[in-house]
Amino acid sequence: MKYGHFDDSAREYVIETPATPLPWINYLGNEDFFSLVSNTGGGYSFYKDAKLRRITRYRYNNVPGDNGSRNYYLSLMDSNAINAKPIDTWSPTFLPCKTPLDSYKCRQGIGYTVFEAARHGIESKLTAFVPLKTNAEINRLDVTNTTDEPVVLDVTGSVEWCLWNAVDDSSNFQRNLSTGEVEIEQQSDATLIYHKTEFKERRNHYAFFAVNSPVVGFDTSRDEFLGKFNGWDTPQVIAEGQVHDSVAHGWFPIAADRVRLELEPGETKSLIFVLGYIEVAKEDKWEDPDNPAKVGIINKKPAHELFRRFATVEQVEAALKELNTYWTELLTTYSVESGDEKLDRMVNIWHQYQCMVTFNMSRSASYYESGMGRGMGFRDSNQDLLGFVHLIPGRARQRIIDIASTQMEDGSAWHQYQPLTKKGNADIGGGFNDDPLWLVAGVNAYLAETGDASILTEPVPFNNVEGSEVPLLEHLRRSVNFTITHKGPHGIPLIGRADWNDCLNLNCFSDTPGESFQTVENNDTGVAESVFIGGMFVLYGGQYADIIEHYGQLTGMTDAEIAAEAANVRAEIGQVSEAVETAGWDGEWFVRAYDAYSRKVGTHEDTEGQIYIEPQGMCVMAGIGLDDGKAQQALKSVKDKLTCDWGTAILAPAYSTYRIELGEISSYPRGYKENGGIFCHNNPWISIANALADNNEEAFAVYQRNCPAYVEDKSDIRKVEPYVYCQMVAGPEAPTPGEGKNSWLTGTAAWTFVDVSQYLLGVRPTLDGLAIEPHLPEQFTDLIVTRVFRGVTYRIAMKRTGERTVSVNGERLAGNVVPVPTDDTKLVEVAVTF
Amino acid sequence: MKYGHFDDSAREYVIETPATPLPWINYLGNEDFFSLVSNTGGGYSFYKDAKLRRITRYRYNNVPGDNGSRNYYLSLMDSNAINAKPIDTWSPTFLPCKTPLDSYKCRQGIGYTVFEAARHGIESKLTAFVPLKTNAEINRLDVTNTTDEPVVLDVTGSVEWCLWNAVDDSSNFQRNLSTGEVEIEQQSDATLIYHKTEFKERRNHYAFFAVNSPVVGFDTSRDEFLGKFNGWDTPQVIAEGQVHDSVAHGWFPIAADRVRLELEPGETKSLIFVLGYIEVAKEDKWEDPDNPAKVGIINKKPAHELFRRFATVEQVEAALKELNTYWTELLTTYSVESGDEKLDRMVNIWHQYQCMVTFNMSRSASYYESGMGRGMGFRDSNQDLLGFVHLIPGRARQRIIDIASTQMEDGSAWHQYQPLTKKGNADIGGGFNDDPLWLVAGVNAYLAETGDASILTEPVPFNNVEGSEVPLLEHLRRSVNFTITHKGPHGIPLIGRADWNDCLNLNCFSDTPGESFQTVENNDTGVAESVFIGGMFVLYGGQYADIIEHYGQLTGMTDAEIAAEAANVRAEIGQVSEAVETAGWDGEWFVRAYDAYSRKVGTHEDTEGQIYIEPQGMCVMAGIGLDDGKAQQALKSVKDKLTCDWGTAILAPAYSTYRIELGEISSYPRGYKENGGIFCHNNPWISIANALADNNEEAFAVYQRNCPAYVEDKSDIRKVEPYVYCQMVAGPEAPTPGEGKNSWLTGTAAWTFVDVSQYLLGVRPTLDGLAIEPHLPEQFTDLIVTRVFRGVTYRIAMKRTGERTVSVNGERLAGNVVPVPTDDTKLVEVAVTF
Repeated sequence: MKYGHFDDSAREYVIETPATPLPWINYLGNEDFFSLVSNTGGGYSFYKDAKLRRITRYRYNNVPGDNGSRNYYLSLMDSNAINAKPIDTWSPTFLPCKTPLDSYKCRQGIGYTVFEAARHGIESKLTAFVPLKTNAEINRLDVTNTTDEPVVLDVTGSVEWCLWNAVDDSSNFQRNLSTGEVEIEQQSDATLIYHKTEFKERRNHYAFFAVNSPVVGFDTSRDEFLGKFNGWDTPQVIAEGQVHDSVAHGWFPIAADRVRLELEPGETKSLIFVLGYIEVAKEDKWEDPDNPAKVGIINKKPAHELFRRFATVEQVEAALKELNTYWTELLTTYSVESGDEKLDRMVNIWHQYQCMVTFNMSRSASYYESGMGRGMGFRDSNQDLLGFVHLIPGRARQRIIDIASTQMEDGSAWHQYQPLTKKGNADIGGGFNDDPLWLVAGVNAYLAETGDASILTEPVPFNNVEGSEVPLLEHLRRSVNFTITHKGPHGIPLIGRADWNDCLNLNCFSDTPGESFQTVENNDTGVAESVFIGGMFVLYGGQYADIIEHYGQLTGMTDAEIAAEAANVRAEIGQVSEAVETAGWDGEWFVRAYDAYSRKVGTHEDTEGQIYIEPQGMCVMAGIGLDDGKAQQALKSVKDKLTCDWGTAILAPAYSTYRIELGEISSYPRGYKENGGIFCHNNPWISIANALADNNEEAFAVYQRNCPAYVEDKSDIRKVEPYVYCQMVAGPEAPTPGEGKNSWLTGTAAWTFVDVSQYLLGVRPTLDGLAIEPHLPEQFTDLIVTRVFRGVTYRIAMKRTGERTVSVNGERLAGNVVPVPTDDTKLVEVAVTF
Repeated sequence: MKYGHFDDSAREYVIETPATPLPWINYLGNEDFFSLVSNTGGGYSFYKDAKLRRITRYRYNNVPGDNGSRNYYLSLMDSNAINAKPIDTWSPTFLPCKTPLDSYKCRQGIGYTVFEAARHGIESKLTAFVPLKTNAEINRLDVTNTTDEPVVLDVTGSVEWCLWNAVDDSSNFQRNLSTGEVEIEQQSDATLIYHKTEFKERRNHYAFFAVNSPVVGFDTSRDEFLGKFNGWDTPQVIAEGQVHDSVAHGWFPIAADRVRLELEPGETKSLIFVLGYIEVAKEDKWEDPDNPAKVGIINKKPAHELFRRFATVEQVEAALKELNTYWTELLTTYSVESGDEKLDRMVNIWHQYQCMVTFNMSRSASYYESGMGRGMGFRDSNQDLLGFVHLIPGRARQRIIDIASTQMEDGSAWHQYQPLTKKGNADIGGGFNDDPLWLVAGVNAYLAETGDASILTEPVPFNNVEGSEVPLLEHLRRSVNFTITHKGPHGIPLIGRADWNDCLNLNCFSDTPGESFQTVENNDTGVAESVFIGGMFVLYGGQYADIIEHYGQLTGMTDAEIAAEAANVRAEIGQVSEAVETAGWDGEWFVRAYDAYSRKVGTHEDTEGQIYIEPQGMCVMAGIGLDDGKAQQALKSVKDKLTCDWGTAILAPAYSTYRIELGEISSYPRGYKENGGIFCHNNPWISIANALADNNEEAFAVYQRNCPAYVEDKSDIRKVEPYVYCQMVAGPEAPTPGEGKNSWLTGTAAWTFVDVSQYLLGVRPTLDGLAIEPHLPEQFTDLIVTRVFRGVTYRIAMKRTGERTVSVNGERLAGNVVPVPTDDTKLVEVAVTF
């Protein structure tokens, strides 16, 4: 069952009912100011950091759900009298009012959301977006009277302020109920309500909610606005038709503006609401610091400036157009015409859009990530880069520097860092032994995309300690060296606290209820090994050697040093590869790990958890077993034992009991999450592995099985948005197979884009140029991929002929790597047969 | 304005409307299992620890407020058919339904709450309580058909499960939405729904919600029960009249039982709902661990046993009677007949009840303390003891041991500890230099109450480290010694991170937005001093010396050691006292402190924060200045400069700007909290100080100004419960003077009971016996106080004659200390004139 449709020409998913199985959301904002917005107007805004600088309040896991965010009320009034009463009230976003609408559409676009609604012949269109380089969300509301009579329409817009730190805001009430402060400013043509809680003391930032109109009145006290026992669906002032002009002192400050519109038949009027965030220099905090009568009155100048940039419809239209143009340009970087509209829309729009969002958010703020716990992940963000780097390489570069700056001198890393402070998160700590190698993956992707070797000599500190800076290349060396120096009894890398599968905790042995597996003491005795990290080392160790060989000279290494270092790493790779192929091979698939007792994990000798997905994907991606049938055998096992209609499960059979020696993985009910769920992140690894093994039908089938556009018609079962990936789909052993959870913030976004763009469509940046090798099933015969790479547009026409050739400007290449033009050529025509 | 009335004979506050200004709550439970319950049925339950073992989910600061806790729905059905439809539905607790009731009463009693409601001629009475020594909340629901027709009434009872750790439950959704698990058990005469999330793994505890009846059906999935967009006021299954028999797999597990009752005219039927908590031994977790078909099926035997103890009306009545008897016996420990019903009800019922609650909860779980952050406070709990020790000295003894076990070897202390683990809370840390001395106060109160000197030789560890145990007396010595060894330039004790006023942070200099003043680096340079701690040292140092002199021998000290130790401490007291009277005296009041630059805080030389309440109260309580007029002068300044109709403010004038050298105190808006609010905790210090200075009218007036019963008729302004204290009332400089906040968990409870019982009514336990010295205003002429003290009942008849005498059995004592009988006398008649 579907709840909407794709509008590819507008780059939108058009939701046709508010009653989606779950809120279906979108992200507004690109750099510092972000908003989440659901198809019923839910969500919240924050500046840079969803924990430390939350602007509006949002209640997770609430009843009723998804209420109290962008609260707009359209009240058809019985007259234009001062004491007019509402005949009926509804929300242009459906919620919070819940009043049935005569028509409803929510267009989730690329960086904007549009709500179209109608009731009583009043048509409304609410457009929400965050303009480029702007710390504000714009909500433009157009209302049209399609009736034959004039109408009086009261429009009330409101937000609820979060007292900045989202954790404190939801726990420290004995303090917070006394701190709230606001200011109200009524200009002749605009009304601004300021949230200045704690500005009195150490904060140098405030927020405002403004409308480009005088108002009938306002409210800033939530209790006054809602009245007793009411929800956001039925505020007292809305029912009464009268605002209270309340001024909040502590308790729960909000901002509510009420504007009265008179609309002639056929007339349209527009209002612009702006939710803005302002930072001021310490010395500029106050309006008039020397005037005792003005103590505590904030400096509103920068708010006025920001507001006046969007005070007219023309300004707002221009800003939205600018945003659209920006995205159009970004998305030209990679596009395909494949003849399959689902593939095209995912590749050309939604995969890349989700990659931008995961790059921006890491795993911090979604409708499932509360924005209170997790910062930017070392592992996560490196992987997110893989799908993002082609869009804005400059931001990827900065991210790499930020990530590497949290690495320790021994090559290990903080597992997460807080985006506002960029410091390692001591609550989580480190010890995840796969983390360092992901830095190689991220840097390699950046180099392949840009060829910008200057990043390798960029001075980068350890653990953010000033003075500890070394060139980035040295960080890579330490990453690789960390694995080399942390191997176990079988010569396979030690797993540490955990590897990519955070929940496989082989050194933790937690027996205390509720204890976090992420932070419980890590009793690494040097025994527990990860075959998965073994595969990673072969893959990313190899990338490191390539980087050295390509760019070592530029960084000041001598040829001899380069040769010695590369040879050493390749020798280590050979050893690990050998260990993986022997101790790491179970007969029909790769073993997952060795536990702290040096017993196999992921083996046919066990009754549960016999086969895990991760080593099959990663080892084959690293090329292990491609030459001797092990890869094909492992992939066959994946298909036979892990794959169902909904995708490929993480392991099977799921664990029915808790196994203290395995940790969190066995804590989940069967079929969910890491215990037998379809953990989408690693499905593209299997697709890539199949592509590398030339299993082209299966490679694409793996991609297709849980690709949103292809399973859109199962939205009633999957529940999550049909335009983006979710973290996990309940596996075949779950009571609710196919049910998706934790949408948006998942490494699936980046890995899927890598899979489909670089392996299935087969246009892959390398250090030497653009490699082209499509792996597509029979139905694809004729495609065009357009790729902007290092400033050059490659127009790649692909035709199925049965023979693999790559020609540039009519000339056939020896291999499949299209070199970067050395002249100022801006367009390269590539003809590919396959 | 009032919203109810006191029913003293029933020991109840009877709330007459659901529309109280804020939820007015009560506490159920005495030892391990606790519930909060508001006058509209809100609240939640937990076992021992509101953070780590929360049983039901509660949403703080929610919209709509106070919903979704105890959800009972009475549905008048149109027939007894299987597909009968509801004619109307309401809640016997008003919320969540909000359906208007024909009559409503909520009786907040001592350890129980009763809701009486009526609609459509159906009268309901819901009685909620936690039986003694039982890990369950009982909800007995009686429904009576007062109409002339038979009716069909569907009763649905429901709770929403919290996934145990309240912090994780409200943040870690990417995990928690996949972990929820339940079991449903339908017996012939009962229905039990089990919440077993994470029992699969490390937990050995589960909860259940049961009813002593077969059911029409059940629900365990919140989404199924509520349906889309609905709140707890209008669940879909309630509107439909049909449950879904849903089984939750992850997402949001609840328990909902629906029972159908047929009531003849005049007939009453009763249902008993039990919310129980079960812990099992590890080896007893499973029903049949060897049967593969029963994997994961929990051992329900202990739940059956618990449930069957309360499965009949007779059993429930007996348990409630037992609870009432228990309280009647407790409250006989101290009672008064004064001729003033307000004084009597507060002393005889509500002060002592609140003391029990603050003893149990410290500052962890109320409607303002979210139960997620704060554990048991070292300072808080010692003070809470002062008002509780007479009720159950044995529990006070254990608490003292628990508190002292978190002390460090140098005498300093963790500021808080977690009740479940009893370990110091590293998130908060230590360095609050008043903390150690409060241990002396607590132990002295215990000794005075019980004469049980064996506590002094009890081995007690430092920082909970096994093997570090020393006798408790040694802990006291180190407490006192900590102050002796931490004095500043003026010979006044150093303040450290902060003293009682957590928000006066003289060594923190925080400039980072949102940084916690409690945990920011403490840059104590040995300069900032606290006159308040000076007063404390004089008072509690003296108590320590008394303890040594009284009991030193029993602990093995020689007479010479005792004399030397006592002399040394008294000499130190003399020095500190001298320092306070010189450097600590501002001319008309005591200085509050010296800051890190050695500048006075709380001085007429400043324009704001000229006078603080704390040193005036504490220094005079310590006896400083009583002999030379300073005490009278200080108290006059308190009255003139800090006191208004609502009570005595903490300081004046309030700070209008942030002062980095003072810290959090200046962060609040003027008139709120520590910045000029009436911080109720220290008002009794002023009352005691006035009593000691023989200002009897003012001593009582201070008590009266913010004593709940005396200000009941201002409930519309105060907002908080009129039967217990709140932490803070907005001060005269606030925009909302008189508005109360943070009710229930405040040291005001203990200190007020100390004040009124020991100083105003003047019956004070001492190491030597019961001292009697009333300080009452003119209107009190004839009173009787009954006090059970060390196993003996003292019946104390007091008469105003103008002369102070104390006679026992007709014989006048030389002093005012009634000695403890050395024979087995159980009743002592004391005659007092004043």
